[in-house]
Amino acid sequence: MNKRLGKCTILLANPVSVSTYYCAGGKREKEGPLGGLIDYTTDDDTFGEDTWEKAENSLQKRIFEGLMSKAGKQPSDVEYLLAGDLLNQCIGSHYGLRDFGVPFFGLFGACSTMAEGLALGSILIDGGFAGRVAALTSSHFCSAERQFRLPLEYGGQRPPTSQWTVTGGAAVLLESCGAGPYVTHITVGRIVDMGIKDVNNMGAAMAPAAADTLISFFRDTGTYPTDYDIIVTGDLGFVGWELAKTLLGKEGWLMGDNYNDCGLMIYDRDKQSVDAGGSGCGCSAVVLASRLLPGLQSGLYRNVLFVGTGALMSPTSVQQGESIPAIAHLVRLSTVKEG
Amino acid sequence: MNKRLGKCTILLANPVSVSTYYCAGGKREKEGPLGGLIDYTTDDDTFGEDTWEKAENSLQKRIFEGLMSKAGKQPSDVEYLLAGDLLNQCIGSHYGLRDFGVPFFGLFGACSTMAEGLALGSILIDGGFAGRVAALTSSHFCSAERQFRLPLEYGGQRPPTSQWTVTGGAAVLLESCGAGPYVTHITVGRIVDMGIKDVNNMGAAMAPAAADTLISFFRDTGTYPTDYDIIVTGDLGFVGWELAKTLLGKEGWLMGDNYNDCGLMIYDRDKQSVDAGGSGCGCSAVVLASRLLPGLQSGLYRNVLFVGTGALMSPTSVQQGESIPAIAHLVRLSTVKEG
Repeated sequence: MNKRLGKCTILLANPVSVSTYYCAGGKREKEGPLGGLIDYTTDDDTFGEDTWEKAENSLQKRIFEGLMSKAGKQPSDVEYLLAGDLLNQCIGSHYGLRDFGVPFFGLFGACSTMAEGLALGSILIDGGFAGRVAALTSSHFCSAERQFRLPLEYGGQRPPTSQWTVTGGAAVLLESCGAGPYVTHITVGRIVDMGIKDVNNMGAAMAPAAADTLISFFRDTGTYPTDYDIIVTGDLGFVGWELAKTLLGKEGWLMGDNYNDCGLMIYDRDKQSVDAGGSGCGCSAVVLASRLLPGLQSGLYRNVLFVGTGALMSPTSVQQGESIPAIAHLVRLSTVKEG
Repeated sequence: MNKRLGKCTILLANPVSVSTYYCAGGKREKEGPLGGLIDYTTDDDTFGEDTWEKAENSLQKRIFEGLMSKAGKQPSDVEYLLAGDLLNQCIGSHYGLRDFGVPFFGLFGACSTMAEGLALGSILIDGGFAGRVAALTSSHFCSAERQFRLPLEYGGQRPPTSQWTVTGGAAVLLESCGAGPYVTHITVGRIVDMGIKDVNNMGAAMAPAAADTLISFFRDTGTYPTDYDIIVTGDLGFVGWELAKTLLGKEGWLMGDNYNDCGLMIYDRDKQSVDAGGSGCGCSAVVLASRLLPGLQSGLYRNVLFVGTGALMSPTSVQQGESIPAIAHLVRLSTVKEG
């Protein structure tokens, strides 16, 4: 039973239905261009909690409860949860989801976590191991800022290449039967490190990984960038998006107007002071659940490439002079089951 | 295609062969009861590096290279890597494995990572998505101690319930074809939190998760503890091992002399000043690759339950007064393919 296509891509024998999705965001996400499309937004980024980490736990809990409510399901109807986040030891997921009693696979893919969860969740279903699984992730500007950079109270200046961590997250429910949209292909990324050491320029660190995975996918499937209604990386932001286009162009893959990035879609860079754009696990997750999946359901898109990107460093590795390794996982989404 | 057995257990249609395995350890592991069985040991816990984190990267790199060498394979022969560790953002795996160019799934299961990797790797193969994958993990006493507890230089006292993080790690090569030992069943754990807040008593925090997963497995398979040559949890250490027996006994599952724990097997508690025993991702990984898998190959064991346990807190969550959630994933290993 060979489900490989080319060197790196999985072709699902039975495309998996993304039956339900739910996303949530904070104040800045509400004010952004996708604000009206996010299932739940709040002006209170504390989510009623007294620490930023507990706020993120509360956010993940809310997302999963929202997913269950929208799907008309109970947690006991879900066979596996796949989740992770940016916090040390992924405490956003562990505390947010500990009360549901669902068998749990913990993931760490940094900002690529939603794509990694979609990939492994689809594998569990297509492989016959489950009929219904949920993948989810989150990030929070305030918990990320103090963990990765500086305490908020310090008020440090941000260089123009920096990105703004999304306060938000999303959950998707994958099912063996359903009306779609469908996951049809998966390309699992490899770790790519081109020597970038500037922790305020994650886009540059991650762009080579995005280009690497996209090229693998195009080669494996014999398709071209023009074959897709929209190709979305993320969270590369403006700097990484430009760089990815350059890197792909050098290898002969010309990216057109159908190429966008989650870091550019979630905020209005002209009005929202987010420098190069959005970032964080929540960035691509919220764009997926507020724009891409609804677009597939409404007929706006038929054929989407979703390429989650993640930077795999830690503050400790950066302080020790290390460069920033990155990864990108690709999931193709389609309105039809055919590959 | 239903591969579920009972409520929580996966029965692999085509048991997956653990064809090759390789493990490494530091000075204390070398001096322990399994020292002579570990593929590579060294008296130099720095592994030639100038920081403890880089030492752990070097350890993971060495483990994967050792696995490839022992198997007579190249990294390009491996379709997927599944790896993670205890360091913030799992930098042990990301830096240790970044040079190999193998598609990579990042996991976070704390000290249960080897069991999680065995489970997902087996799923990738049994599901037809790959023919050969590697799962690996590591931990390092010195990088863990300063991240989770106190700088080594502080010389803090350790309570008798505390456990000693193993400096070591292991890698396993899973293949669709091979002479075994075989992974035949998987029970994926759910997060269990019984309210333990003492970060120096991880055994107590994790024991309920181990009991929960074992009970699910026994119920799903209709088997009993006496049906196995050895049942190994870990890393619960002495306190958690005793508590797991009590919890299982209260539910009617009497654990006999065939029940052991990786935290008790890797060190000699009478001679090595490790308090309640070993811990860390490397603990169960090294016991698996130095004792359990060789035991299955030599005929010492025919039928093994390997139950990796992980504590899912972070120093931040503990400082904020949170209790410690835990998880346990079970993998059944057998000398024969039959389930």
